[in-house]
Amino acid sequence: MSKLTDVPKRILIGRALRSDRLGETLLPKRVALPVFASDPLSSVAYAPGEVLLVLSVAGLSAYHFSPWIALAIVALMVTVVASYRQNVHAYPSGGGGYEVVTTNLGPRAGRTVASALLVDYVLTVAVSISAGVENLGSAIPFVVENKVACAIAVIVLLTLMNLRGVRESGTLFAIPTYVFVAGVFTMIAWGAFRGVVLGDEMRAATADFEIKPEHPGLAGFALFFLLLRAFSSGCAALTGVEAISNGVPAFRRPKSKNAATTLALMGLLAVTMFCGIIALAGATRVRMAENPATDLFHHGVPLGPDYVQHPVISQVAEAVFGQGSLLFLLLAGATALVLFLAANTAYNGFPLLGSILAQDRYLPRQLHTRGDRLAFSNGIVLLAGAAIVLVWVYGASTTRLIQLYIVGVFVSFTLSQIGMVRHWNRLLAVEKEQAKRRHMIRSRAINAFGAFFTGLVLVVVLVSKFTHGAWVALLGMCVFYVTMTMIRRHYDRVAEEVAAPEEPSDDMVRPSRVHSVVLVSRIHRPTLRALAYAKLMRSDSLEALSVNVDAAETRALHEEWERRGIEVPLKVLDSPYREVTRPVIEYVKSLRRESPRDVVSVFIPEYVVGRWYEQLLHNQSALRLKARLLFTPGVMVTSVPYQLQSSEVARRRARKRADWSAPGAVRRGPVERGSEQRSKGSSKDT
Amino acid sequence: MSKLTDVPKRILIGRALRSDRLGETLLPKRVALPVFASDPLSSVAYAPGEVLLVLSVAGLSAYHFSPWIALAIVALMVTVVASYRQNVHAYPSGGGGYEVVTTNLGPRAGRTVASALLVDYVLTVAVSISAGVENLGSAIPFVVENKVACAIAVIVLLTLMNLRGVRESGTLFAIPTYVFVAGVFTMIAWGAFRGVVLGDEMRAATADFEIKPEHPGLAGFALFFLLLRAFSSGCAALTGVEAISNGVPAFRRPKSKNAATTLALMGLLAVTMFCGIIALAGATRVRMAENPATDLFHHGVPLGPDYVQHPVISQVAEAVFGQGSLLFLLLAGATALVLFLAANTAYNGFPLLGSILAQDRYLPRQLHTRGDRLAFSNGIVLLAGAAIVLVWVYGASTTRLIQLYIVGVFVSFTLSQIGMVRHWNRLLAVEKEQAKRRHMIRSRAINAFGAFFTGLVLVVVLVSKFTHGAWVALLGMCVFYVTMTMIRRHYDRVAEEVAAPEEPSDDMVRPSRVHSVVLVSRIHRPTLRALAYAKLMRSDSLEALSVNVDAAETRALHEEWERRGIEVPLKVLDSPYREVTRPVIEYVKSLRRESPRDVVSVFIPEYVVGRWYEQLLHNQSALRLKARLLFTPGVMVTSVPYQLQSSEVARRRARKRADWSAPGAVRRGPVERGSEQRSKGSSKDT
Repeated sequence: MSKLTDVPKRILIGRALRSDRLGETLLPKRVALPVFASDPLSSVAYAPGEVLLVLSVAGLSAYHFSPWIALAIVALMVTVVASYRQNVHAYPSGGGGYEVVTTNLGPRAGRTVASALLVDYVLTVAVSISAGVENLGSAIPFVVENKVACAIAVIVLLTLMNLRGVRESGTLFAIPTYVFVAGVFTMIAWGAFRGVVLGDEMRAATADFEIKPEHPGLAGFALFFLLLRAFSSGCAALTGVEAISNGVPAFRRPKSKNAATTLALMGLLAVTMFCGIIALAGATRVRMAENPATDLFHHGVPLGPDYVQHPVISQVAEAVFGQGSLLFLLLAGATALVLFLAANTAYNGFPLLGSILAQDRYLPRQLHTRGDRLAFSNGIVLLAGAAIVLVWVYGASTTRLIQLYIVGVFVSFTLSQIGMVRHWNRLLAVEKEQAKRRHMIRSRAINAFGAFFTGLVLVVVLVSKFTHGAWVALLGMCVFYVTMTMIRRHYDRVAEEVAAPEEPSDDMVRPSRVHSVVLVSRIHRPTLRALAYAKLMRSDSLEALSVNVDAAETRALHEEWERRGIEVPLKVLDSPYREVTRPVIEYVKSLRRESPRDVVSVFIPEYVVGRWYEQLLHNQSALRLKARLLFTPGVMVTSVPYQLQSSEVARRRARKRADWSAPGAVRRGPVERGSEQRSKGSSKDT
Repeated sequence: MSKLTDVPKRILIGRALRSDRLGETLLPKRVALPVFASDPLSSVAYAPGEVLLVLSVAGLSAYHFSPWIALAIVALMVTVVASYRQNVHAYPSGGGGYEVVTTNLGPRAGRTVASALLVDYVLTVAVSISAGVENLGSAIPFVVENKVACAIAVIVLLTLMNLRGVRESGTLFAIPTYVFVAGVFTMIAWGAFRGVVLGDEMRAATADFEIKPEHPGLAGFALFFLLLRAFSSGCAALTGVEAISNGVPAFRRPKSKNAATTLALMGLLAVTMFCGIIALAGATRVRMAENPATDLFHHGVPLGPDYVQHPVISQVAEAVFGQGSLLFLLLAGATALVLFLAANTAYNGFPLLGSILAQDRYLPRQLHTRGDRLAFSNGIVLLAGAAIVLVWVYGASTTRLIQLYIVGVFVSFTLSQIGMVRHWNRLLAVEKEQAKRRHMIRSRAINAFGAFFTGLVLVVVLVSKFTHGAWVALLGMCVFYVTMTMIRRHYDRVAEEVAAPEEPSDDMVRPSRVHSVVLVSRIHRPTLRALAYAKLMRSDSLEALSVNVDAAETRALHEEWERRGIEVPLKVLDSPYREVTRPVIEYVKSLRRESPRDVVSVFIPEYVVGRWYEQLLHNQSALRLKARLLFTPGVMVTSVPYQLQSSEVARRRARKRADWSAPGAVRRGPVERGSEQRSKGSSKDT
């Protein structure tokens, strides 16, 4: 609660605070890594498992292929990371894939990428939270028995936190992320130590299960297709890599270099963890299946619908650290937490993307400026709502949700690499210097290979997953695409309609006269203030206007007007049916009828109140009148506010709201500081 | 859909229409009777039955008392009608009971009466529609099997009709009412003819049933109490009598005399029908019980829960006209229709009462003027919602709902008669002329007797029905009472706060200077218009203000400003965190800091759009800024509208809405026509 003493403090150190914030906001690499990379790093919690799940379709023998698949994924990760390092150097403004594609491939492709990214954000929330709930459930059985309810509860909690405006604090992110990374590395190291050096046999809890293959004896093309499916499931490990390219402005200087380094670091950690987990899963003989109820057998008996299949990372951790051990619980907790934080990145990335899209007029303009808490809130609620629907429909099952997830990711990867290739081509066309040209050719090669590889993966993903759920993601992308196109079309049409002409037109010819009309009902302070303010604005005529809805009140008004000797003439309109709006509108129109170039300025006294129910008791007729007046050409409406004492409450509330930390504020970085500019107009006119 | 050709027509015959309406609106007696008396006349559809139901508690023998109870009710009706005839002569302005009580007994009693009347309106809807459904159900079995659903459907239908603004046409009311009255009289006459002249024995369908008394052998005080209960149930026949006293202004001249005559006519019809039905019920041996499932027996077997007990009027009609005969169906239909129309009177009476209460500041002021469709709509929806809740909770059972109904009616009867007594006392204190004094003394005697009788009935009703449900009505009255008191207190407090002082104060000392600030973001037509309008209002300083949320846009703005040679100086504020509102507020405050008596006038260009979704795309930041500016002292905010082409749609829609017929408009009559008045101000200042 602000006290009076806060006010001078704010005045004194206001300016100082702002420079502090500027310094604070830029992130050092050690903080940027958790903030931006929690999504890709956390993906290793579920991606390896997805690979094994798909392979299980062909039976246990297919598990032999898992290392090869892991290798392919590593190759892909290296390619994508290398490609994006080119992005962050070439486009340091934080536009990310969207900017690259729009600049180089045109607005349609840009909209496609934007739709893919928007769908991605929704799925990031859905998938990460479902995975987090599954991981938490390996430690707390209750959670996994009520997966959907817990997942929705977590989504609601995150939504509320973001609505309130929790500052995306680096520390908040850093600790769980580093604990997670350290935990996984410890697990890999310890597992390697035990297995290789100590020779322990570590068995997962599922090591004794048999897998009944859905398609036994798969071979040839069918087997190859299955491997492709497994590979595309494993590509879930790459989701979120582009987040860093969106966040370059938030890095400390040199921004691009730091961002590129962070990318590389992230890639390294991710591939190491991925391979390590796959290896340990093989060593501890983890058995997983897509439909464990019917396809996993224990001593010849199917496990049945009560069996809960734990994520691979927790099965491995259990085998390495020991069942129920402290390290196991710690890792399970950190994994869940890091997955929830990864979901949170969507809440922060979304306004960022929304702001950029709004700047290009694909989304409502108020998303472009920070101050609009309401617009952001709406966006966050929409995001959460869509995620909740998905979680509910798909039963909070990570496996099923991932089928939707990867499409959007690879659309944006592919398009953005193709965009980069065109970028280098454009530069190469004009660049003469040899050293730079060699560098560009090298970069182009990297991006070209990246485009090829991710394009291939995109085709694989589309082909292998379309019927499994990818069509839902494509549908979502279409909806976003069409909406953005229509919004842009609307803004373009309006812009054309309101474009200022070069030649002076009717609009710009100065209107001849202005008539001021002050609406009065009774004589009280708001009325007197409105009259005083209206007199200040020296117009060609000034009169007070009242509507006769009650004969006694009107007589009293006349009498008091005379008694006080108010110099402004008072005109009373008749209204036999007690309406206020129509007589006033008619009168205003009549004022303009003789000279259509005249302008009428209507002054309306307005109570400023503090509580919502008070608003029901005041101003209602005035608001309705204002709305009708706005339709009348040649009219401007002035509200002369009178702040009631109760408005103090509302003022404090509004000020508190202004201190709200908009999500994504940290990631966007500050606006380029233009010096306080001033265009001096000619001194002809004040 | 208004075409352009409608516009001149409206201009030409606009004035003519208004005088026509004035003539049309005043009602002749033959139309006023159905409009105002449908409620009391329709009550005879259920009131006699309620008497029989209560009497059945003591067994069949108690039915002998029904004529005596009928007589008591007739006496009461005569008294109330005679008393209210005094009301309409003494208070012809249409304030009804509320006005009488407030003027003579003070505001607290007035609020009590108002609360009682408001509760009454809700119950009128609930009871009338439930009874209507029961009557309809005697002809159409489906309806009575789904009583609650049908009742709610009818309430919703009536609500929609009133929201749309169906004009309360006299013809709409007259036909069903006269058909109903004629039907009942025909039934009585025919029944008397058949029974007395032809000697037919007419037996009701229930004539063979036996009644198992809940309390056999009731005698002495207990029997007397039961008779009182039956009497107070029968008093439901009096509900709605005061409606005429509320509607005096709508009668043709001489208003009071016509209203009094209509009252007498209504009373006569009502008592005749009531007595006739009771007599026929006795003659045709109608048997009814409060719990027919357990208390009615046929050949010694209880009827069970599937038995549907039809209202007495339909049982009698069936016996007199013959089962399933045309006249029977006609009467059943007319009864249902007249009951639904009686419910509709609540929809029309409520805004009337609301307007009067708003005038006294017990309800939000916008209910006082006609034009506010939204406020009325809110009230109608609230009324309907409360009625639906009651219908649902009480299973659309007329018998159960009536227990709540009568309390409010008799509170308002009693208080209003007491008020009249004080009225005559006041007049008698100053009146000297003998003839007039005698007249007043006679009137006072009538009202005093009325007050005594109705007060007695009120006590009886409270005592006999409190536990049966009357407490719910009392609770509702308390809620209304408290709400109105608090609203009044709020308005009083605000009025005190804003009362204009006699001595010139700070507010009235003319502010020294006015600075005009025009908010611009880009240069387009709305901006140019705002600049042009701002220049018109000759203020002490004028500048354009923009906020730098995007460095490139701001640079472009500067360049174009210079290029066009706009004479108004442009000032750009920095905003590192992209907020628009805070920098503007700070700047406006800084303008006033040096001279606190200065006033800042902020001009904000505003798009006027046609469709709701377009509003999401424009003006959002402007609206938020406006709201914050209103909290800042010394500021007035001017909206300079720019009507987009799509706003034409909205303009037509708004005009259509303005033609809406407000419910109760007919009943309120027109406003006293004050001549178009004009207070000439001194010619010192324009």
